[in-house]
Amino acid sequence: MISSRNEVTQMIVSAKVAKGLKWSDIATRIGASKEWTTAACLGQMTFTKQQAEVAGEIFGLSDEAVAWLQIVPYKGSLATAVPTDPLIYRWYEIVNVYGTTIKELIHEEFGDGIMSAIDFSMDIQREADPKGDRVKVLLSGKFLPYKTY
Amino acid sequence: MISSRNEVTQMIVSAKVAKGLKWSDIATRIGASKEWTTAACLGQMTFTKQQAEVAGEIFGLSDEAVAWLQIVPYKGSLATAVPTDPLIYRWYEIVNVYGTTIKELIHEEFGDGIMSAIDFSMDIQREADPKGDRVKVLLSGKFLPYKTY
Amino acid sequence: MISSRNEVTQMIVSAKVAKGLKWSDIATRIGASKEWTTAACLGQMTFTKQQAEVAGEIFGLSDEAVAWLQIVPYKGSLATAVPTDPLIYRWYEIVNVYGTTIKELIHEEFGDGIMSAIDFSMDIQREADPKGDRVKVLLSGKFLPYKTY
Amino acid sequence: MISSRNEVTQMIVSAKVAKGLKWSDIATRIGASKEWTTAACLGQMTFTKQQAEVAGEIFGLSDEAVAWLQIVPYKGSLATAVPTDPLIYRWYEIVNVYGTTIKELIHEEFGDGIMSAIDFSMDIQREADPKGDRVKVLLSGKFLPYKTY
Amino acid sequence: MISSRNEVTQMIVSAKVAKGLKWSDIATRIGASKEWTTAACLGQMTFTKQQAEVAGEIFGLSDEAVAWLQIVPYKGSLATAVPTDPLIYRWYEIVNVYGTTIKELIHEEFGDGIMSAIDFSMDIQREADPKGDRVKVLLSGKFLPYKTY
Amino acid sequence: MISSRNEVTQMIVSAKVAKGLKWSDIATRIGASKEWTTAACLGQMTFTKQQAEVAGEIFGLSDEAVAWLQIVPYKGSLATAVPTDPLIYRWYEIVNVYGTTIKELIHEEFGDGIMSAIDFSMDIQREADPKGDRVKVLLSGKFLPYKTY
Amino acid sequence: MISSRNEVTQMIVSAKVAKGLKWSDIATRIGASKEWTTAACLGQMTFTKQQAEVAGEIFGLSDEAVAWLQIVPYKGSLATAVPTDPLIYRWYEIVNVYGTTIKELIHEEFGDGIMSAIDFSMDIQREADPKGDRVKVLLSGKFLPYKTY
Amino acid sequence: MISSRNEVTQMIVSAKVAKGLKWSDIATRIGASKEWTTAACLGQMTFTKQQAEVAGEIFGLSDEAVAWLQIVPYKGSLATAVPTDPLIYRWYEIVNVYGTTIKELIHEEFGDGIMSAIDFSMDIQREADPKGDRVKVLLSGKFLPYKTY
Amino acid sequence: MISSRNEVTQMIVSAKVAKGLKWSDIATRIGASKEWTTAACLGQMTFTKQQAEVAGEIFGLSDEAVAWLQIVPYKGSLATAVPTDPLIYRWYEIVNVYGTTIKELIHEEFGDGIMSAIDFSMDIQREADPKGDRVKVLLSGKFLPYKTY
Amino acid sequence: MISSRNEVTQMIVSAKVAKGLKWSDIATRIGASKEWTTAACLGQMTFTKQQAEVAGEIFGLSDEAVAWLQIVPYKGSLATAVPTDPLIYRWYEIVNVYGTTIKELIHEEFGDGIMSAIDFSMDIQREADPKGDRVKVLLSGKFLPYKTY
Repeated sequence: MISSRNEVTQMIVSAKVAKGLKWSDIATRIGASKEWTTAACLGQMTFTKQQAEVAGEIFGLSDEAVAWLQIVPYKGSLATAVPTDPLIYRWYEIVNVYGTTIKELIHEEFGDGIMSAIDFSMDIQREADPKGDRVKVLLSGKFLPYKTY
Repeated sequence: MISSRNEVTQMIVSAKVAKGLKWSDIATRIGASKEWTTAACLGQMTFTKQQAEVAGEIFGLSDEAVAWLQIVPYKGSLATAVPTDPLIYRWYEIVNVYGTTIKELIHEEFGDGIMSAIDFSMDIQREADPKGDRVKVLLSGKFLPYKTY
Repeated sequence: MISSRNEVTQMIVSAKVAKGLKWSDIATRIGASKEWTTAACLGQMTFTKQQAEVAGEIFGLSDEAVAWLQIVPYKGSLATAVPTDPLIYRWYEIVNVYGTTIKELIHEEFGDGIMSAIDFSMDIQREADPKGDRVKVLLSGKFLPYKTY
Repeated sequence: MISSRNEVTQMIVSAKVAKGLKWSDIATRIGASKEWTTAACLGQMTFTKQQAEVAGEIFGLSDEAVAWLQIVPYKGSLATAVPTDPLIYRWYEIVNVYGTTIKELIHEEFGDGIMSAIDFSMDIQREADPKGDRVKVLLSGKFLPYKTY
Repeated sequence: MISSRNEVTQMIVSAKVAKGLKWSDIATRIGASKEWTTAACLGQMTFTKQQAEVAGEIFGLSDEAVAWLQIVPYKGSLATAVPTDPLIYRWYEIVNVYGTTIKELIHEEFGDGIMSAIDFSMDIQREADPKGDRVKVLLSGKFLPYKTY
Repeated sequence: MISSRNEVTQMIVSAKVAKGLKWSDIATRIGASKEWTTAACLGQMTFTKQQAEVAGEIFGLSDEAVAWLQIVPYKGSLATAVPTDPLIYRWYEIVNVYGTTIKELIHEEFGDGIMSAIDFSMDIQREADPKGDRVKVLLSGKFLPYKTY
Repeated sequence: MISSRNEVTQMIVSAKVAKGLKWSDIATRIGASKEWTTAACLGQMTFTKQQAEVAGEIFGLSDEAVAWLQIVPYKGSLATAVPTDPLIYRWYEIVNVYGTTIKELIHEEFGDGIMSAIDFSMDIQREADPKGDRVKVLLSGKFLPYKTY
Repeated sequence: MISSRNEVTQMIVSAKVAKGLKWSDIATRIGASKEWTTAACLGQMTFTKQQAEVAGEIFGLSDEAVAWLQIVPYKGSLATAVPTDPLIYRWYEIVNVYGTTIKELIHEEFGDGIMSAIDFSMDIQREADPKGDRVKVLLSGKFLPYKTY
Repeated sequence: MISSRNEVTQMIVSAKVAKGLKWSDIATRIGASKEWTTAACLGQMTFTKQQAEVAGEIFGLSDEAVAWLQIVPYKGSLATAVPTDPLIYRWYEIVNVYGTTIKELIHEEFGDGIMSAIDFSMDIQREADPKGDRVKVLLSGKFLPYKTY
Repeated sequence: MISSRNEVTQMIVSAKVAKGLKWSDIATRIGASKEWTTAACLGQMTFTKQQAEVAGEIFGLSDEAVAWLQIVPYKGSLATAVPTDPLIYRWYEIVNVYGTTIKELIHEEFGDGIMSAIDFSMDIQREADPKGDRVKVLLSGKFLPYKTY
């Protein structure tokens, strides 16, 4: 009996290590970007029936687990409000140090509103650099304006 | 008597509203990107002597305030660990929902290490889109590997 | 020298008590709903130039304060993550008790996504009832779907 | 041996996914609104004996589990004071951004008191809109006045 | 310029010490119980016009302060979620130690619902006892049932 | 092997639901008030040998569990500093809204000191009322004075 | 206008440094132990009229400040739940490391109940020791038993 | 397989209740004070090989558990920063109310430094008193001075 | 099925106690410093294939566990933001007391930037001292400068 | 009137920026290491009379401020439990990632006890490195053993 998506995420993570799979290959088989696919496998996105069945084959999941992949999960992947892992913390630090800057510049360009985290995509790439390669990330989110009513 | 950079930030913010200035124009005069300049004006970065003097002219600051702009500030622009402002929260949400995904994909490409938030740059642009314009953000951070010692 | 929208909010709140004004009358003069107008006066929304000037007349604000009303504010009206005021707490309690229910029913009807708090409106009315009048609140938020990318 | 309502909620959630049921159909069989029924199934409301027996049939529960459904639960459905799930967070954000506004307008109309979260009902509907369908929520709570004593 | 009820509370507290007044005498003049009156003077309840004017005379308040007493305050008298003052902490401890007991016994007698903290009164008395006098407190709150809808 | 009182509390709660018992009946058999008995069964008070044996019979506990009932428990019945359950929250709210009031009035009557939460008793009763029955609670705690030393 | 005991504490602390006084001398003049006197001067205890007047002379306080010393203060001397100062932290650490030990041993000797922090005294002395002098602290608190009711 | 000292503590606590042992008797057999022995059994101190073997006999522990008793534990016995148990809370309250007093008096006698919580001992005794017996606690900690370097 | 690195850490810790191993010997066999090796075994660093296989032999791990050692872990070894263990707390205290000092001196020498915690090494040694041996720790982290862009 | 050391720290910080001083030069004049001197100037250490007078001359302080420098301060230099500033956070991260490692290695070498943060010194140096200069920090703290008593 599976009673939360989290249990399915643990099965997936466990199978991925045991089988030595890569996220980019999994994404190709699922037929979506590596960013969306990884987030979905880690319990943050909802699979279609077809995607779930492919995932079921890749990770060797039961029918019940495949059904859970199609249920909208309770999102949020961090165990603490301030993440302890150094890689994820650096992103939290960017939000903390640049938060008011991002706010000012988006408002200056677009007026009052937000950059959507729902109508959103992310692309993570290696950027070759002689002084040391860089992580290049492209975020794209629809601007949603506040309106007077 | 000024006893913290925060007081200078308040002077700058106050002058900016009173004079109706734009961050992009201020950046042109300072001679740096609008992202770095805004962060610096909001108390997150350190000005060179020359930059500080230009800022002093733009915002009408005293010599003491100009001296403070050249002192490394205590960084962090958020009043609470989880930001309440909707625009900034969406960025926190991205870190929360995609945090483990970002971690997995950077490690898959680069191995163990982090994406630097120090050797780092950010570029925020409007992306025209017939279904509603988008905020396009390019982040670039040097990959720093953990090493065995 | 005004260095935050919060100072302007305090001027408005102070003037409202001193002059004995009502939010619904203020809204009529501003030309927007009482819900939007109150939120704007309490520092959560951005005024247009025209709205700000009317507000300036109503509350007797300086030109500097009127300029601040047109600056996008740092939003969030609560002093603590869990509000202590009984009226506002009841709303927090609704989110706590019904949170997973709201999530299930919106997902059942719309699939994965959210109800926008930006493309959003609220209408608060008295509902006469012989067993004691009721507060009737209508919330309307655009559904924003998550998409695979 | 079942020692908390939470265990029964997990059985229900698990059975719902395994059987592919919908909350609106479950509500019809229970004989109550979909909002109340979902909250009850998720461990926030108390079933009558008759309702509990119907729920027991729907989800295939043991007699002990059916007995637990008739026990008043310890309420509160969120794992953290500030919810991490984007859909539920948007509701928290509404309370945070509009909290003081809601307080002002209810007091302006009714005087000191609260909108009850106990003598309360909620109705969630799809609102068709050519610019994108909307979630329309109607909340109704009895006004309870503070009195001098 | 007064911008919050808290400032008026400070004036009242300050005047009470300077004039050496007692809450029970103040209550007699206000014409309400000592419990309600003290809570009102400490910024937790709303005065009628007449009550506010009497309070204004007692404490020597300005017209603006008297106007503020008639505005519904943002309630909550504690600086921290867990109170540090030993007397108030003992009450928090009662809620912590007996919380689930109170819940069980009210539900056993009344079914699902709450004891109102709004339609509520409190009476604090000295109870003479040869082994040491006791504080006797009578709380009375309307029972408000949850209903199926 | 039982390693905490909490495990015994779970056995008791489980048995109570399975057997359909009432706290008032249990209290009669234990020979104490329903308030003390419920608190004791919920792991907040210490049973005498005799009381523990009666409890063992009522709930069908093992000798080891009966031994644990006679061990002083680690007290505190709430999972979070601010309780999420609406019934218990209302008590927290009373402490929050009336905390400084209670402090003022006890000090006015007794001087500096506290109302004991140890030499303490509580009595919860139904109070019939044509406008809706009320929960009437009588608290009695010994006054303990601070002394100069 | 003084509106809290905290303001008087600041006056006392300020005067003590300016005049170069010692707590033990102050205690002699007040006529109480150095422990009680220091706690009282730091805003944790209530002065009698006579003690307050002596304190007024020692620290050069106004009549209003002297009146405040006779008002029961809101107690608690730490700015954070976990103290940051190393000396005070060591005491917090003792409670954290030995907390369950203290609980076990007092219960073993006295049964269920507490060691009072109200009917309590403390004595801090230097204990000469060839390996380095020690701080010797004697705490004495009345045992208060829980009783069945 | 035992993977933390905490598991051994649970075995000890469980055996102590099942066998009806007393801490003072256990201490005599271990050959140390009852305060050190209890803290050690509750997972806060490290046993020598000989002490561990005696403890193993007393509580009927496996060789693996006896080995764990000789491993330095992760210390800290409280589940929350502010303890909920009334007996332990009273100690936290003493630190909170008297914290700054203790700091002042130790500094007045010894200068800047701390009272060690490592080179530390505690002795808990019953103090007979006609007005009710008292808990008398003697704490002794080496003074460790801060030095200029 | 192993679903987190944490499970492997528990196996290692358990085996180390059962086999009576020392970290310095383990490090010699792994072929790295005792500091890196201990951190890696405690789940904070990533093993190479060869190192993981040696670790597998030392601790008697399954192939699946050995595979997990080569997966980048979610880092952070503390259960609470402020550590309760006295040894680790002293390090937290050093950061708290000397934090601003470290910041000032690194900035004075290097300008704005940070000392890396990634390109970082640590060496812990015993320093013989007639007044009591000392723990000598050498930290070395690359300086990473902030740059204008 | 100065009522806390914090006010003196602000005067010092303000004077340092206005006069363009360096910590290493200040330390030379004070006659102590740059690490101790900076910590002392930032309100974490206690000055002797002579040191305080030199500091008074350097920063142009009043006699009252000089007296405050000789009073033991309430220590702790961070505004939040988890520091937001990137440079200081990296140190917090070292404690978080390496905390259990440091604990294991010190215990392996010395047995149970701690590394003192009081009998402690720190030395921060630039370490030239062709791949980028490094920050080299030497920490030395006396080992303090726990003893059985």
